[in-house]
Amino acid sequence: MTSAPFDERLEQILATTAKVFAAKGFHPTTMRDLSRATGMSLAGLYHYIPGKEELLYLIQERCFQRVIAGAASAVSLGTSADDRLERFIRHHVAFFARHMSEMKVLSHEANSLTGKRLADINALKRRYFEMLRGLTSDVESDHAAHHDPHVAAYALFGMMNWIYNWYNPAGPLPPEALAERFAQLFMFGLTSPAPSTASHGG
Amino acid sequence: MTSAPFDERLEQILATTAKVFAAKGFHPTTMRDLSRATGMSLAGLYHYIPGKEELLYLIQERCFQRVIAGAASAVSLGTSADDRLERFIRHHVAFFARHMSEMKVLSHEANSLTGKRLADINALKRRYFEMLRGLTSDVESDHAAHHDPHVAAYALFGMMNWIYNWYNPAGPLPPEALAERFAQLFMFGLTSPAPSTASHGG
Repeated sequence: MTSAPFDERLEQILATTAKVFAAKGFHPTTMRDLSRATGMSLAGLYHYIPGKEELLYLIQERCFQRVIAGAASAVSLGTSADDRLERFIRHHVAFFARHMSEMKVLSHEANSLTGKRLADINALKRRYFEMLRGLTSDVESDHAAHHDPHVAAYALFGMMNWIYNWYNPAGPLPPEALAERFAQLFMFGLTSPAPSTASHGG
Repeated sequence: MTSAPFDERLEQILATTAKVFAAKGFHPTTMRDLSRATGMSLAGLYHYIPGKEELLYLIQERCFQRVIAGAASAVSLGTSADDRLERFIRHHVAFFARHMSEMKVLSHEANSLTGKRLADINALKRRYFEMLRGLTSDVESDHAAHHDPHVAAYALFGMMNWIYNWYNPAGPLPPEALAERFAQLFMFGLTSPAPSTASHGG
């Protein structure tokens, strides 16, 4: 067996598992539930993974690794602090609009891991948070603004991450348009008279 | 037995149950866990409540009833659309800073109720959402702004509700100061040069 099909199959297992964890929660889910959901035998599933905590770890680890790498790449093309922050927002919303189950799992099961696995994930989360905190801080400097970058970064993450509670990416408002609205609101506020996205309709 | 001590005891049971549900999740929690946490016998607990779904319902129902009544009262003192929205934000943040466990339960267990109980809670949630949507819409009108009030209301709820993931009400930033920062950010944006709260420090 080469590693490519193994990895591909593992990716499918992780995607299905994220859906089950999102719907049912991590603790009540059994390996038997996951065997049913993936259409694999229990033995087949254990060939890929030692248990459900490792699945939860891999879902979170791959999600953060990818969103961090994607954000770094998106931001690197920015031409100003404002532009870099807008690119971060667009990337984050687009990424999690494609990974709504993972987003719910990252939020609801943040404390379901233990020991080294939990420490690993928290280190990744910290890296991603610091990336956004740096970007908001740069925007403030450019505009001689004086918000609290710590609160500002969490406010923006809240705005964006809450979408798993209400947003349907397949509905009338596509992720790019949602991201633009968030960017306008966050950068210029509800009272800004004419957001450049207002004409996009929807 | 008069109804006052019954209600008081029930309030204590609901507060303790919210903490257990927040820490452990609704589904894995048993009535036996709740008996241990409240220091009551199982029979004693069943005297107050027919089962754990009714507890989850009462936690959500009382929380929404109170936050709606409190918000209506706070907003009624507002002197302008901006002032009314700021009062809503201050009330919401102050209320949930005192009810962080309930906030987590409202978010994580939104779909753990069924049937009429779920419909009841969703109707209350809708009422509260519409209150905020009306307020954001009024602010936009006053400023001749053209955001999407639906997205704006969810963005603001996200910003405020996410605090259960990171904020410690007993830490250096008191809820009133946090609420002012959210209000400034949401109304005027990260790029606004001199938010009136910047001088509050912290």
